[in-house]
Amino acid sequence: MEGARLVHLKGYGATGIKEILDAVGVPKGSFYFYFKSKQDFGLQLIDHYSRNILRKLDAFTVRSDLSPMQRLTAFFDWFLSMNEKNQYRGGCPIGNLSQELADIDEVFQKRLHQVFEEMKDRISGLIVEAQSTGEVETSLDPHALGDLVFSTFQGALIQMKASADPSSLLNFRHLLLKGFISRQSKT
Amino acid sequence: MEGARLVHLKGYGATGIKEILDAVGVPKGSFYFYFKSKQDFGLQLIDHYSRNILRKLDAFTVRSDLSPMQRLTAFFDWFLSMNEKNQYRGGCPIGNLSQELADIDEVFQKRLHQVFEEMKDRISGLIVEAQSTGEVETSLDPHALGDLVFSTFQGALIQMKASADPSSLLNFRHLLLKGFISRQSKT
Repeated sequence: MEGARLVHLKGYGATGIKEILDAVGVPKGSFYFYFKSKQDFGLQLIDHYSRNILRKLDAFTVRSDLSPMQRLTAFFDWFLSMNEKNQYRGGCPIGNLSQELADIDEVFQKRLHQVFEEMKDRISGLIVEAQSTGEVETSLDPHALGDLVFSTFQGALIQMKASADPSSLLNFRHLLLKGFISRQSKT
Repeated sequence: MEGARLVHLKGYGATGIKEILDAVGVPKGSFYFYFKSKQDFGLQLIDHYSRNILRKLDAFTVRSDLSPMQRLTAFFDWFLSMNEKNQYRGGCPIGNLSQELADIDEVFQKRLHQVFEEMKDRISGLIVEAQSTGEVETSLDPHALGDLVFSTFQGALIQMKASADPSSLLNFRHLLLKGFISRQSKT
């Protein structure tokens, strides 16, 4: 979906309907055939991005060749490699839309919140599994850990966009995922 | 600065020059008396926000009645109380601009990166002090810790905007600042 790529790299506000139509090469009437309004387009964008990300996360979740923490790390490594291909622009499309739209439109805010919760549920689920295999300390609340991992990842992506390099993402990986959260760091 | 408040709550792209002028009650000619362009306005906005935040951070840094980690926590508590007043909208004005502008304008990107580095220098400085007083493990790299704290805080603010509540910020405070980073959590 060319419109999704445009918004990912330029932002929602900066991407005009005309530009989306030009990119996909359809006349203006077609936009309103598919979408009721720009808000409707935005909501379908959220669905499009979140479906792709959750599908990818689910694909890593069932990898029986990896331990639970390895699956989680592999998902973030995949995300990092995607950002590398985009020269460290773009970041998380859902995080971007939240930053840009959550404050100005309650419909977007509620939908984005729901998507964040779905992502965090997957992350916490892997952490619960990692606790059962002994990779993560069982005294830590998996939901709180999932929330912390998600916050740090989103913030590292903001830093990536400003620095145009992956150093904060690598620091997140090393210090939080492999460090604080993993049991071996406590011993 | 009314323009700064508008952009903080609505976003840069969604705030038109006309709206800024209406808010401050000046005719259009005045805008171009003060600013060369909307980009120039954006750069001055970054300076305005960063000056305010760094000044506040510096004020906490010299609080001799608090330990280094207490100073750092007090700064984040102040930030949290500001967001509470805004009903958990707004977040970090610099983080917002980075999310929105770093990808589409290299001048903004470089300036935002510089501001992030200045903020992280302050945070890492407090962590170095906290290591000297024994509040933070000395085996951990203070710059990496400062970067992690900054990422997590920025990401927790994105989550705050989507959830319209402070739970991720409180989790950042409890699990990272008071937990993983503080020496007592290791014992």
